[in-house]
Amino acid sequence: MTEESSGWVVTVSVPPPSLENNTADADRLINELKSVFKTDYIDIDLPLLKNLPWLLRKCEYQVRCVCFKDCGRWQLVGIKSVNDPAICAGIAIDLGTTRVVLRLINLETGEAVAETAFDNPQIDIGPDILERIHFSDNELNLNKINRLIIDGLNENISGLCEKSDVNIQDVFLLAVSGNTSMCHLFLGLPPNHIIREPYIPVANIFNTVLAKELGIRINENARIFIFPNVGSYFGGDLISGIIYSRLHCQDDISILVDVGTNAEVVLGNKDWLVACAGAAGPALEGGVSEIGMTARPGVIDRVVIDPEDGMFDLHTIEELRPKGICGSGMIDMMAQLFLSGMVDIRGRFVASRCKDRLKESDGIRRIVLVSSEDSATGQELSISQVDIDSLVRSKAAMYTILETIVRYVGITFDDFSTFYIAGTFGSFINPRSAISIGMIPDLPEEMYRSLGNSSLGGATMVLTSRKVLEEVAGIRDRITYLELNVNQEFMNRFSAAKFLPHTDPSLFPSVKRIAF
Amino acid sequence: MTEESSGWVVTVSVPPPSLENNTADADRLINELKSVFKTDYIDIDLPLLKNLPWLLRKCEYQVRCVCFKDCGRWQLVGIKSVNDPAICAGIAIDLGTTRVVLRLINLETGEAVAETAFDNPQIDIGPDILERIHFSDNELNLNKINRLIIDGLNENISGLCEKSDVNIQDVFLLAVSGNTSMCHLFLGLPPNHIIREPYIPVANIFNTVLAKELGIRINENARIFIFPNVGSYFGGDLISGIIYSRLHCQDDISILVDVGTNAEVVLGNKDWLVACAGAAGPALEGGVSEIGMTARPGVIDRVVIDPEDGMFDLHTIEELRPKGICGSGMIDMMAQLFLSGMVDIRGRFVASRCKDRLKESDGIRRIVLVSSEDSATGQELSISQVDIDSLVRSKAAMYTILETIVRYVGITFDDFSTFYIAGTFGSFINPRSAISIGMIPDLPEEMYRSLGNSSLGGATMVLTSRKVLEEVAGIRDRITYLELNVNQEFMNRFSAAKFLPHTDPSLFPSVKRIAF
Repeated sequence: MTEESSGWVVTVSVPPPSLENNTADADRLINELKSVFKTDYIDIDLPLLKNLPWLLRKCEYQVRCVCFKDCGRWQLVGIKSVNDPAICAGIAIDLGTTRVVLRLINLETGEAVAETAFDNPQIDIGPDILERIHFSDNELNLNKINRLIIDGLNENISGLCEKSDVNIQDVFLLAVSGNTSMCHLFLGLPPNHIIREPYIPVANIFNTVLAKELGIRINENARIFIFPNVGSYFGGDLISGIIYSRLHCQDDISILVDVGTNAEVVLGNKDWLVACAGAAGPALEGGVSEIGMTARPGVIDRVVIDPEDGMFDLHTIEELRPKGICGSGMIDMMAQLFLSGMVDIRGRFVASRCKDRLKESDGIRRIVLVSSEDSATGQELSISQVDIDSLVRSKAAMYTILETIVRYVGITFDDFSTFYIAGTFGSFINPRSAISIGMIPDLPEEMYRSLGNSSLGGATMVLTSRKVLEEVAGIRDRITYLELNVNQEFMNRFSAAKFLPHTDPSLFPSVKRIAF
Repeated sequence: MTEESSGWVVTVSVPPPSLENNTADADRLINELKSVFKTDYIDIDLPLLKNLPWLLRKCEYQVRCVCFKDCGRWQLVGIKSVNDPAICAGIAIDLGTTRVVLRLINLETGEAVAETAFDNPQIDIGPDILERIHFSDNELNLNKINRLIIDGLNENISGLCEKSDVNIQDVFLLAVSGNTSMCHLFLGLPPNHIIREPYIPVANIFNTVLAKELGIRINENARIFIFPNVGSYFGGDLISGIIYSRLHCQDDISILVDVGTNAEVVLGNKDWLVACAGAAGPALEGGVSEIGMTARPGVIDRVVIDPEDGMFDLHTIEELRPKGICGSGMIDMMAQLFLSGMVDIRGRFVASRCKDRLKESDGIRRIVLVSSEDSATGQELSISQVDIDSLVRSKAAMYTILETIVRYVGITFDDFSTFYIAGTFGSFINPRSAISIGMIPDLPEEMYRSLGNSSLGGATMVLTSRKVLEEVAGIRDRITYLELNVNQEFMNRFSAAKFLPHTDPSLFPSVKRIAF
């Protein structure tokens, strides 16, 4: 089977013991695996070793072996008989700050068996990673916050297995993709130096960890692979995203952007990779506006404003009565306000265009999106000048980061063949809207490609391909990480980008505002 | 320090974090260690990683690191400040079937700090390894017998540390040398296939094991190195013995023999190594005779018989009243009985020479060594014809094994530059006596070299030298193990060797029996 020869499960026929071949059980098995994997060493942990004689004889020396490679060293993780109909399973995990997504994989066929997701229970400590890190300043609290995610994972792994009819003992591998702080909290490593100058993680590269060492209840020999980080602000989820995009294998230059409170960017091709990360502020995720919330039923996710009559056409998820607006909805809204002339190039409300939608209280102007009668909350839904200013700063930061890294490399936006947008949030952004407000460069829409949950996608690939695992370490080592210096030049660019779409409209020729 | 650069403890100065060097704590430490050890990977286990940020800062980035190499892969085991006056300790363990010896080592200086020894508590299950293996046929019993040795070790490690003023948390490495079965019982691996055709151990090469995984209470990250076995009947204790003898480094051919119930033999030089093992029977260890016992105060360990008047001059350990005879005493006794003409070349008592020391009961003749008045037990101490026959068979087996392996290699005894006798028991054998009965070849006495507890010696060396650890795997892989076929040719040689010293006296020209 092709799947077998490229994945982590291999079927081997172990020579039975005889007086002519009476070396140890482990030796005879390892010899076979060595020749499959072309390696000098294969480790077998003690608990598996204890069962090995019995297992080999029970399986009549015909075994499926689940193996994994740990920083260059092979590890035997599990053994099943060739006659056992049960699958050898693995679980890919996108360990998000807000949401955790699990995908159960058949390790032999690569097939995704089932998925589940849950809110990161650490949100109870703080929705923001910074709060969680401050909370973890002592060992007791660190253990507490670690238990939250471990317990959440155990519960959901168990549910996922149950609904897939997979025995929890048949889960042999986990691949975890998360940002640097989340990886620390998952492993119980003190994250406190990550957020304090000079921003030091405990580790960037993790050995695989025994699931039981972390209290994860799957097969007792199961191993957890954790994507390595580049540094404090460029985590394993991005490496996983690169893996999923295949950017690192291409001849042409592409760029991958993870849009969020932190904007993480990587560009390059098969020969080079340059990355940077910078704070864009929570506005892009809808996390600043009073009515901002994460995408869920009843949340405004698409906005169209008729330039003629100024009518708002708001779309909500599952078309329920609106209760708030998500990040991608906010970008849409901003673009439509600008294109319809309701805000000017400085992001200020234009009273003559907003008409009676414009209100003011406590000296702050706001535009009403939904009246209290039409909203699900019974409250008026509106966007204030403060919300808009915050979004403008965020989009300007995003654009400035992109501009800075592109200049650093010595290319222009036109040199890109593809502009990948990573992350679940990113996948909902309408590129046209993001271009209209000058958040991303004015490239043909078809060049933008949304990757969906690329962090989960990369983790899935690592569980199904040995070649992909090799690539992970290669990518990490190849990335040149650019520390963004917020110097005068950066600030000048940032100031220029704080206009809609930009002080220099020639950078956004496609953005046509209505004439009024 | 020279010791540092060749041993497992190195002092490194880790660059403090800065905005210019803000990679992870683990990265900055590992980079230093990588350049010391010239390796691509160094593993840090999770518990140590958790403490790393705190440890590095507490030590002001000046640290002593205890490392170890596991089948080609480096492992960070412990960290101490350069200012901490406490030693980094290791314990070498000779895991004997009968007796367990522990030696506490200062890992930095190589100095042996203290030693202790205790009877293997598994003796309660059976003095003989076979009984223990039969007992271990089910998991419950295997756990029980495993607990016996682990508890015994914990108790003695704790005592050893206490008397040496070493904190148990400062013990970072153990090196364990034992035979294949003892290693299995120590690790809790099922030994049952070792003694059943085709004689299959679970494993021959062991990864280092975390001490806590076995329930050994020392530093929580401490690692245990276990000498690899060649096979069921050639264990890690012999590899350790070779290491200690340095036979594997020499230009000249030498032979190393571990005399016991099983005779294990290895011969060779820096270019080749051939080994074999065979049953010699318990007679050589004094374990068959009714009055046979292991060496302890009051036990006869040296015998001289005046060839003129037939007077016995018996020496006992600590010169107490005699209560039994140990293995080396038995060999001495046999040699003296033969040289004085009290037994003939077939090993039969010569009545005219034994005179009134010869008695007979139930049709079995015996020679009285100590009268009931002179013995410590109030019982007459005597050796029967059955005891002597058994010893003769054992010494014949020993000689035949030596003869067989030497012929197999195509050399003669005269090609040896040194004849090493390994093991605590072996070190008490008087080579002259062993030659006199034809147990070992008739070589000049100065060629025989007793190594003492070579198993402990090798384990000590592994704890103090990285080069020596490299040699271990090399030795194991280089050994050609010769399966002794008990065929007609072997039986013919065995029959010829069942005479004192041999049917062919020309093989033992130095053995001069008194004329009578």
